[in-house]
Amino acid sequence: MNRIKLVFTFLVLMGFSGFSQSDEEVLKTIYHQTLTNGKSYEWLDYLSNRIGGRLSGSLNAERAVEWAKGQMDSLGLDRVWLQPVMVPKWVRGAKEYAYVEVDGETTVMDICALGGSVATDPLGIKAQVVEVHDFEELEKLGKNNVEGKIVFYNRPMEADLINTFEAYGNCVDQRYKGALEAQKYGAIGVIVRSMNLRIDDYPHTGTMTYDNLPANNRIPAAAISTRHAELLSSLLKLDKKVQFYFRQNCKVFADVQSYNVIGEIKGSQFPNEYIVVGGHLDSWDLGDGSHDDGAGCVQSMEVLRLLKNSGIKPKRTIRAVLFMNEENGLRGGTKYAEVAKEKEENHIFALESDSGGFTPRGFSFQSSDAFFKKAQGWEALFKPYLIHYFEKGHGGADIGPLKNDHIVLAGLVPDSQRYFDYHHTAIDTFDAINKRELELGAATMASLVYLVDTYGVTP
Amino acid sequence: MNRIKLVFTFLVLMGFSGFSQSDEEVLKTIYHQTLTNGKSYEWLDYLSNRIGGRLSGSLNAERAVEWAKGQMDSLGLDRVWLQPVMVPKWVRGAKEYAYVEVDGETTVMDICALGGSVATDPLGIKAQVVEVHDFEELEKLGKNNVEGKIVFYNRPMEADLINTFEAYGNCVDQRYKGALEAQKYGAIGVIVRSMNLRIDDYPHTGTMTYDNLPANNRIPAAAISTRHAELLSSLLKLDKKVQFYFRQNCKVFADVQSYNVIGEIKGSQFPNEYIVVGGHLDSWDLGDGSHDDGAGCVQSMEVLRLLKNSGIKPKRTIRAVLFMNEENGLRGGTKYAEVAKEKEENHIFALESDSGGFTPRGFSFQSSDAFFKKAQGWEALFKPYLIHYFEKGHGGADIGPLKNDHIVLAGLVPDSQRYFDYHHTAIDTFDAINKRELELGAATMASLVYLVDTYGVTP
Repeated sequence: MNRIKLVFTFLVLMGFSGFSQSDEEVLKTIYHQTLTNGKSYEWLDYLSNRIGGRLSGSLNAERAVEWAKGQMDSLGLDRVWLQPVMVPKWVRGAKEYAYVEVDGETTVMDICALGGSVATDPLGIKAQVVEVHDFEELEKLGKNNVEGKIVFYNRPMEADLINTFEAYGNCVDQRYKGALEAQKYGAIGVIVRSMNLRIDDYPHTGTMTYDNLPANNRIPAAAISTRHAELLSSLLKLDKKVQFYFRQNCKVFADVQSYNVIGEIKGSQFPNEYIVVGGHLDSWDLGDGSHDDGAGCVQSMEVLRLLKNSGIKPKRTIRAVLFMNEENGLRGGTKYAEVAKEKEENHIFALESDSGGFTPRGFSFQSSDAFFKKAQGWEALFKPYLIHYFEKGHGGADIGPLKNDHIVLAGLVPDSQRYFDYHHTAIDTFDAINKRELELGAATMASLVYLVDTYGVTP
Repeated sequence: MNRIKLVFTFLVLMGFSGFSQSDEEVLKTIYHQTLTNGKSYEWLDYLSNRIGGRLSGSLNAERAVEWAKGQMDSLGLDRVWLQPVMVPKWVRGAKEYAYVEVDGETTVMDICALGGSVATDPLGIKAQVVEVHDFEELEKLGKNNVEGKIVFYNRPMEADLINTFEAYGNCVDQRYKGALEAQKYGAIGVIVRSMNLRIDDYPHTGTMTYDNLPANNRIPAAAISTRHAELLSSLLKLDKKVQFYFRQNCKVFADVQSYNVIGEIKGSQFPNEYIVVGGHLDSWDLGDGSHDDGAGCVQSMEVLRLLKNSGIKPKRTIRAVLFMNEENGLRGGTKYAEVAKEKEENHIFALESDSGGFTPRGFSFQSSDAFFKKAQGWEALFKPYLIHYFEKGHGGADIGPLKNDHIVLAGLVPDSQRYFDYHHTAIDTFDAINKRELELGAATMASLVYLVDTYGVTP
């Protein structure tokens, strides 16, 4: 074949748009396989209903590690292993208890300790409440108005942001740094409105920081359900002398041994180029972590299973990594990147699913403009699957530490409208998962991994 | 201003793409209003939880009519009225009962009568079962194998179709014409696998036809839950002598008086050009009809409220029409079109929401290529709201009778993955509705109505 003919054939194969007709067929096979013979739903059923919530350092987290390794072992991959990582161990202890007291009349409030919070006094703490909406307001109130009180952060998520993660990002400082800021002014405790767009009864936990505060200066922090945040705020408008009581029993233990779970298909052509697909295996303790992030784990396992079963022989080495300890430490993600660096493994692409198991809408790419343009050339391939969102943005927390000068990071972007109904609550459970939506996410991830494997990440 | 300048200004205003910058602002206002101060969720709560299922001809349907009129009255529209229409009245009667019997051992089965079916004998009917997957298979079996038996249609929805309505369309002949076909071969009853992509315990009702069959030839038809369809099929594989018993108590009464509920904002410039936005107020009787189609009704009412409250003065006359009797007769849609024709009302556009209250993805347009091209010029305006699906396709059942040589029909296209989990079942209830998703649908409809009002439907 002469050179012009070769180039022409190539252009025809590529359809002038960065992919070939056979890619269409591959995607069709991937989606068909997932929707008719997928394993992700069955896997998630087990992980959620037989194991359940799996906070780092807990027995359940270790059961999840064992189970996930066993499942990946059964797929006939080239290699499956556990990557040791030390993780923090924080436990909630006995269920929290809280009430608001107005003129001697008490009303029980739905709260939960924030992850990493210290306990209250064993008898609980009771004090006046001061409501604020941000740290500026807190600063303006100053020590005079805050000392000896409980600070109540009550800035709601913005309902008119279409991407609910944006609304979350605009609010989460209250949870993450609320105690740290409030203690500066002598507050004795912190209550934070749950990061939730609905008004309901479920407090949302989540990680918080004391930074390097000495133990003595650490004050307890809890989340309150949005319904009770509204109630508390109304009561404060009527009577500033409202008293709030809460008791929580959390405790930090020494770090414990845990693991990332990794499965690998060796690349046939460029075995030293690594593609990672992942989610995090740990979850909060209140629900069973189906959306956050059991979904991402089973979808990542499904990507390997699909590639294996579709007879696709990847050119590059593909790994599914189930990271440990995303929620309260990011130790798994950090460790994975450290080891990859030590071993000089050339990671070219990492895709994370950690935004829930809802209908996939597309991807956000943390990449060069040049790669992004290349990815946009694949967009048309996804149209039949209603995948339309190709934007630059955040990749994912666990894969973040892999960032270097050439890796492309990407995040699966599912529909986000319902996510914060469940996030970090007792109702993040398997019944909130729709099988088809979960499967479509897995197929969408597998399709992108296939394309990156086929065409690489260089423009 | 000279002519060139005028054209230039016009082009700038239009952004060279069929809309102006101020349109962006209007859409922003519409979405903001809906997500922060919308009424659709509160309305649907009332319609679903205080009124409930509202099958045509029932007391609840009349309560829904009264309530909807009252709500529209309160919006300060130019006109609100009831449009009389006679509707069929079919009632389910006492709850259905069914079991399968194998060697004298019985297992209770989840069934429900199909809408329009006749009752069984008051003592029920019991017979051998013959399983088929389509009418061809039935024909091949012929009278010899079918006479005196119960025909069990068990062709599942295709899981690998991304648009679940397509899978529904490929299956629903079993439900709609199953009894009509089976009686030709002497069957004494029909059991139809529910139109459901999940395996669960809820039978899905829905309309069926006997065409012009004499009363004596009409055989009873019921839907069976997908779980029990699978079980029945397994039993039949083991033992063809399986007996199936069912009893249902449905009854048809004489037609009764009912109404379409209509609200109108008079056009300021072209009052004789009509734009309709609508859903159907009747529902099946098993659940409360939140998705099918309470959602479409409250979204349509919300469109008028939003236009009114955003200070938009429509050029054309905009109507919200809550159609009666979509489910088992389409009398409301037919009547509305008849009256529009009689009065020579020039309807230019009708938009229906009858595919559930899930996250809106876009629209399907039943229109000329020329209008479709015009609509595509608006697509970019919707991108910030993640509305991406602009395709030619079906408008909607209720607005179908309005079809003429120039009207544009359109359907709101929500995410379809979960719809058939709920459709026509006892679990189509308010708790399956997400407030934001419902509201996004209303805002998306209002935005399109605004654009059609502003730019018309001529290319």
